[in-house]
Amino acid sequence: MSRKKGRLYVISGPSGTGKGTVCAELLKDIGNEFSVSMTTREPREGEVDGREYFFVTHEIFRDNIEAGNFLEYATVFDNYYGTPKDMVLSRLERGRNVILDIDVQGGLQVKKAMPDAVLIFILPPSLAELRCRLEGRGTETPEKIERRLGQALNEIKLIGEYDYYIVNNDREEAAALAKSIIAAESARVPEAVKPIIREYENESKGN
Amino acid sequence: MSRKKGRLYVISGPSGTGKGTVCAELLKDIGNEFSVSMTTREPREGEVDGREYFFVTHEIFRDNIEAGNFLEYATVFDNYYGTPKDMVLSRLERGRNVILDIDVQGGLQVKKAMPDAVLIFILPPSLAELRCRLEGRGTETPEKIERRLGQALNEIKLIGEYDYYIVNNDREEAAALAKSIIAAESARVPEAVKPIIREYENESKGN
Repeated sequence: MSRKKGRLYVISGPSGTGKGTVCAELLKDIGNEFSVSMTTREPREGEVDGREYFFVTHEIFRDNIEAGNFLEYATVFDNYYGTPKDMVLSRLERGRNVILDIDVQGGLQVKKAMPDAVLIFILPPSLAELRCRLEGRGTETPEKIERRLGQALNEIKLIGEYDYYIVNNDREEAAALAKSIIAAESARVPEAVKPIIREYENESKGN
Repeated sequence: MSRKKGRLYVISGPSGTGKGTVCAELLKDIGNEFSVSMTTREPREGEVDGREYFFVTHEIFRDNIEAGNFLEYATVFDNYYGTPKDMVLSRLERGRNVILDIDVQGGLQVKKAMPDAVLIFILPPSLAELRCRLEGRGTETPEKIERRLGQALNEIKLIGEYDYYIVNNDREEAAALAKSIIAAESARVPEAVKPIIREYENESKGN
């Protein structure tokens, strides 16, 4: 079977649903890689340029926006964050899957730019459970928790744009299901099946 | 999350590719069931009507064809074999997945009758390996093996009509991939996502 190009997977879901854990599990497979994002925010202690992020100036970031170099980008507290297209494409060409841990708005931008990206939505078992998890963090004010829950519901309303959903009742089960989705996607009969048929035909002809 | 209807899975592939083993593995999961076919052939020793097959006369079979009661049917050596639609539908309604082990022509008939059936094609690693397996059976004449290989290639040419393909290099891996496909399919965001969104909305409104 010919070597395949990788696929792009977007993992999204409201804050607190555990998508970070799911992504971390997926990245244990050497066939899956993260993509390094670009940002205008200052590097924190221990962060290395090109590893956690590409740290650039606002000017450089805006030049990249104008040049259409991002699959998606967003501003958070006066700083830009974006996914450079070339970083993703080069990994896909090398046959690696790329895992993007981004929010729903970013996911929809990616789907527009790359329609064959696979979008996976991580859902909390319920909003009550999500509230529980956010409160458990102990770092958020009650107002912030309410805002996050409202935001969660707004994100969930966009689930129809996604390809798959995983209800995260249990970390391991959720990660296993994400792995199954990736396995299944790589077993899809491609639009261009001719290469598959040709291999058997050539063999039949004794080539 | 609301209880889901089951899905229909068609497993096809040339004789000797090991699709029987894959099906047997899938049926170990209680969420998956076989469907009992109808046939006009005589029951063999130990076969029970309604378990291995529904054994009927040619007349009854033809009545069922005319009434449009089959998802697919075929004739093999003067006998009819078919998949009764109601047997499949009742299992799907009960939330079970139905696994059909049928040939490619049958698979295409099923897809026409039920477009949301999921078609999985089991491929041999190569035609040489398929020949090896057929010869290993020790039951087939060289002419019959040649005919089967020719038939295999003709079936493979129809792979474009299938949704997924599994190259059966290893039984366990092939069965695991089939299970992943079923898991992924049940994690697909349905066309009608409103029930999913509504559950979280109702919870948010305190209903």
